[in-house]
Amino acid sequence: MEEPTSTSEGFPPQMPSTTADSLAVNSQRYPIVNYPVSVVLPAAGSGERTGLRTPKQFCSILGRPLISYTIHAFERILWIDTIVVVVPKESHCLMEDIILKYNHTKVKIVDGGSTRHRSIFNGLRAFSEQGTGFNLQKPEVVIIHDAVRPFLEEDFLHKITVCAKDHGVCGAIRPLVSTVVAATTEGKLDHTLERARYRASEMPQGFIYDIIYEAYQKCSEAEFEFGTECLDLALRHCGVSAKLMEGPPTLWKVTYSQDVVSAEAIIKESLSQYAYIIAGQCMETQHLSNLMKNGLTEAGMVVDVVPSTEKIRNLSTSRNFIKLSMCWPNLAEIKEMTSGSEDTKDFALYPVIICWVYLNVSDCVSTQSENDEAPNVMTLAEDVQNRNILLYCVQVCYNKPCTLWERRVKKVCEITAGLIRQRSSSLIGQILQA
Amino acid sequence: MEEPTSTSEGFPPQMPSTTADSLAVNSQRYPIVNYPVSVVLPAAGSGERTGLRTPKQFCSILGRPLISYTIHAFERILWIDTIVVVVPKESHCLMEDIILKYNHTKVKIVDGGSTRHRSIFNGLRAFSEQGTGFNLQKPEVVIIHDAVRPFLEEDFLHKITVCAKDHGVCGAIRPLVSTVVAATTEGKLDHTLERARYRASEMPQGFIYDIIYEAYQKCSEAEFEFGTECLDLALRHCGVSAKLMEGPPTLWKVTYSQDVVSAEAIIKESLSQYAYIIAGQCMETQHLSNLMKNGLTEAGMVVDVVPSTEKIRNLSTSRNFIKLSMCWPNLAEIKEMTSGSEDTKDFALYPVIICWVYLNVSDCVSTQSENDEAPNVMTLAEDVQNRNILLYCVQVCYNKPCTLWERRVKKVCEITAGLIRQRSSSLIGQILQA
Repeated sequence: MEEPTSTSEGFPPQMPSTTADSLAVNSQRYPIVNYPVSVVLPAAGSGERTGLRTPKQFCSILGRPLISYTIHAFERILWIDTIVVVVPKESHCLMEDIILKYNHTKVKIVDGGSTRHRSIFNGLRAFSEQGTGFNLQKPEVVIIHDAVRPFLEEDFLHKITVCAKDHGVCGAIRPLVSTVVAATTEGKLDHTLERARYRASEMPQGFIYDIIYEAYQKCSEAEFEFGTECLDLALRHCGVSAKLMEGPPTLWKVTYSQDVVSAEAIIKESLSQYAYIIAGQCMETQHLSNLMKNGLTEAGMVVDVVPSTEKIRNLSTSRNFIKLSMCWPNLAEIKEMTSGSEDTKDFALYPVIICWVYLNVSDCVSTQSENDEAPNVMTLAEDVQNRNILLYCVQVCYNKPCTLWERRVKKVCEITAGLIRQRSSSLIGQILQA
Repeated sequence: MEEPTSTSEGFPPQMPSTTADSLAVNSQRYPIVNYPVSVVLPAAGSGERTGLRTPKQFCSILGRPLISYTIHAFERILWIDTIVVVVPKESHCLMEDIILKYNHTKVKIVDGGSTRHRSIFNGLRAFSEQGTGFNLQKPEVVIIHDAVRPFLEEDFLHKITVCAKDHGVCGAIRPLVSTVVAATTEGKLDHTLERARYRASEMPQGFIYDIIYEAYQKCSEAEFEFGTECLDLALRHCGVSAKLMEGPPTLWKVTYSQDVVSAEAIIKESLSQYAYIIAGQCMETQHLSNLMKNGLTEAGMVVDVVPSTEKIRNLSTSRNFIKLSMCWPNLAEIKEMTSGSEDTKDFALYPVIICWVYLNVSDCVSTQSENDEAPNVMTLAEDVQNRNILLYCVQVCYNKPCTLWERRVKKVCEITAGLIRQRSSSLIGQILQA
């Protein structure tokens, strides 16, 4: 039997401590998942509350639809079998395109119903004998989640799954951030709830499949129309009281338009925690690599210095590379740098950043020949952007008095940290001066 | 009697529709505020939940502490008198520095108590005869708000104030985002609340000063220790049932570390809605200005083209300037561009962005003389950064075939929009190529 592990790096991919923790937790404290587990992901909402034209599950975050992040959060987990995504009929083609573009391999699309509960029921039916012709294996445990909660860690999902297997039903909760009040019909304060006694019910929720499927089969029309809580249905129709499990604050749901902006910022932040400096074989670049490691560490990043790209093959714990070189960027080296992860589908999921730091040991004032490089660098950057690599170039002059050199090192750290944090496609191919 | 208006641009300063709406709403639907209104802003929390070393009210957002944004949201409103900020004793000096640095003129600092309610009571006392020696005018209405809710619109604050004057007490509410559940002592689902009957109680809350002050004077030790809700105290001790008023989603509270990242992203987004293109007098720059207006409008920005800086003096609806020029950036013109707002304190509050687009009509390959400009531009950028101006330079070549020219216009739009949205201090003084 295998330990439950991730197929790739987990989300966020650049938070090594989280990934390490989750594996440690799984192997030490939790039983192994050796029964079929699948997911139903209702994504049929119209997104009225965001005030955006695009339903929020399809909003673009770093160029990729939000729902693809949520799908990936499940898909990377070995012990998850199938992810049934329930979308409105009119979004069926869009969803198929997303699956194709981002290489999602575990997804089945089911048409949504007129309410959230009808959509979930449609999703659950895909695993039953009355199913939709997918011929899917009936899961022992089914996870129900929201398409608009992309930040999901494996260790928490594991806890929910195991707890659902043991107790029949398990739901994520969070402490209430605000006090909850009841209003009179005149819109006045009736009473205040005692905050400590209540919790916000969040997603994911886990169920023994037979329990939640039975509960939905017994649902009244009124429940299909106005019900909000799957936990409540399991209690009413099957008498199973959900075990409640406190989750992390990242379970947060994208609800309003400002949340789309926030989600992108959080993803960018998590992607920029970690970087590799590829120091090369020259004394000068190796010297600079040590100084940059210190500078970037001070700026809050976790940095590894490696002599060559050989060392980072297949590690893929970072999508941020700082290449120190006495030459201008060239395609062969970029291909070599990224070949470790190139054949995996992860490449489509998050852009790779390459900050090519060109160490100029000649006269510091730019010469004509170097300026001739500018169009070449831009062409190269536009070329590799098609492979989801964002290439920037930073020129640093080496032969200068010590005081200036210190300032330049500080500057090159600021610039590279800024480029990594912003992940801006509008600045690719630029030659910046440190 | 004067209409209630903002002293400056409102927050977010670049959302013209919001500002316009709020003024329209105030003058059309709401009575004038002609009685003293002051604010108590408890900011004595330790920020345990953020998991950050700095208490969240002092976390830096675009280089400025979060609490300064919240203070500014009140300070810009003419009919607000005093803002009593309640901070822990050990943060007193820090708070004084913030007041000085950002020119906050309406703030008084009061020492916090051991709980939130004790801190609020300390704040309220500053207006009473038992006060702290400030000799402050007792307000008719006092607003209690959170230091960690920086997104506050004047029109909503006006509604809360007027409603508090009429009903004695008024509190902001929001619909519940999540279902609320009650747990058994074993951590299982006891029951689910009917979502439609309940609301999340948010801030700001408004009170007739005498009511809330009396309520706090009657507070028991247990209430000071464990109570969470001012509305509840007013109901219990003074028998006044708060009117509840639904507020916008922006009333959201910075609670966790991810929220600090989100708040910065939301502020950046709001600051980048609006830009001025200063077209100059040349045919070439005027031609480019029209093309850029179209490009940036397509990218979702609201853009005004003006021939010179004369036209934008004192408008200050935007902090983003795109200057088109056949010359390299120079200090005299930058001073002229920013002189309209220079004497107001707003200048310290939000950085001004200047994208200096240099139109190169000579041979497109950079010449030695232009490269000589690079150190000058960097020096200038570092100089004006001290005045909170972020200067970037974009070089565009003019004399080229039509097809290339179209691509260049597209590129210069992408670059300037990106610079404005990212507001990155690490890229100041760079000469980018479009």
